[in-house]
Amino acid sequence: MKILIVGGTGTIGQAVTKLLAERHEVIVAGHQHGDIQVDLREEKSIAAMYKATGKLDAVVITTGKVHFGNLTEMTPEQYQIGLQSKLMGQVNIVLAGLTYLNDGGSFTLTSGILNRDPIRVGSSAAMVNGALDGFVKAAAIEMPRAIRINVVSPTVLAESMHKYADYFRGFVPVNAEKVALAYSKSVEGGQTGQVYCVE
Amino acid sequence: MKILIVGGTGTIGQAVTKLLAERHEVIVAGHQHGDIQVDLREEKSIAAMYKATGKLDAVVITTGKVHFGNLTEMTPEQYQIGLQSKLMGQVNIVLAGLTYLNDGGSFTLTSGILNRDPIRVGSSAAMVNGALDGFVKAAAIEMPRAIRINVVSPTVLAESMHKYADYFRGFVPVNAEKVALAYSKSVEGGQTGQVYCVE
Repeated sequence: MKILIVGGTGTIGQAVTKLLAERHEVIVAGHQHGDIQVDLREEKSIAAMYKATGKLDAVVITTGKVHFGNLTEMTPEQYQIGLQSKLMGQVNIVLAGLTYLNDGGSFTLTSGILNRDPIRVGSSAAMVNGALDGFVKAAAIEMPRAIRINVVSPTVLAESMHKYADYFRGFVPVNAEKVALAYSKSVEGGQTGQVYCVE
Repeated sequence: MKILIVGGTGTIGQAVTKLLAERHEVIVAGHQHGDIQVDLREEKSIAAMYKATGKLDAVVITTGKVHFGNLTEMTPEQYQIGLQSKLMGQVNIVLAGLTYLNDGGSFTLTSGILNRDPIRVGSSAAMVNGALDGFVKAAAIEMPRAIRINVVSPTVLAESMHKYADYFRGFVPVNAEKVALAYSKSVEGGQTGQVYCVE
């Protein structure tokens, strides 16, 4: 398969790239690094990315920003960061990618645990993750040409605990290597409309 | 209690107003009708609404637009309709209302079934409903002064089936009167962080 990994230079993206590159052709897109540069908040940038890749069998997205902050201090503008980057960035990659995916191809998005198991300062992340899970379940039943779509919803990464441990007390972290398996299941399996919770 | 119902002139809003007005002081806000006019996409309009109501014990929101359309024809701009109206309209009413709610007061939002049980043309609704469910679960653990927040997630209304039956074949519709009970549970009960599915 020919697979595009958007966000392939991040912690999860690197693990997914390593796993899938063992048996597939992998193209990595990143904000600053990777084979192709892309700003997922810009539709033009997404269009240019697909023009560079050409036809694909799978698109994996492992990137997107959200703002973390106390609920009582969050502004509408701070919620927009997550809505425009992590949510609509991924959704726009799906919409623009429909014509580039071969029949039976797949999209695999990334949400996260915080809408199921919330933490303080995480209301924007919970909003965006819930939106992604809902979008994928609905989009799956409308995909043309047997194209599939799933989302991976991991808990906090072991690799990130040195930075975020204070926010995730009591959470059981998982390694990026384990999270990567869910992307493999989505890309190389046959399921669609699934939220793969990795905990 | 003194209760503000935003969207109190719609089908659900009228049923909630009827139920709660039996034993509480109810103020209805609507886009064109009601005691107060409000455009929930405008922060200034929301601020003016709260200035008119003064302190409150509960805020119920039963309104918000989303665009329905085939996934393969949906544009990023059409997803923004739901994100700015039904999602951020409700969230902005929560953020702006925090200082107007008395201690132990409550917010009750409205999502819907389509992120759990999707239909064709419903990918924006599924996105927005999932976002609202996630936001409420996370916001609940950060609410100050024992303020509570829940969301009601109803299936299709019996009152709407004459318009939408073709989209909801096989769904069991519920009456607005039954849906209103979930708002009563949220406003008059003690729970928080709940997604009340009415099916």
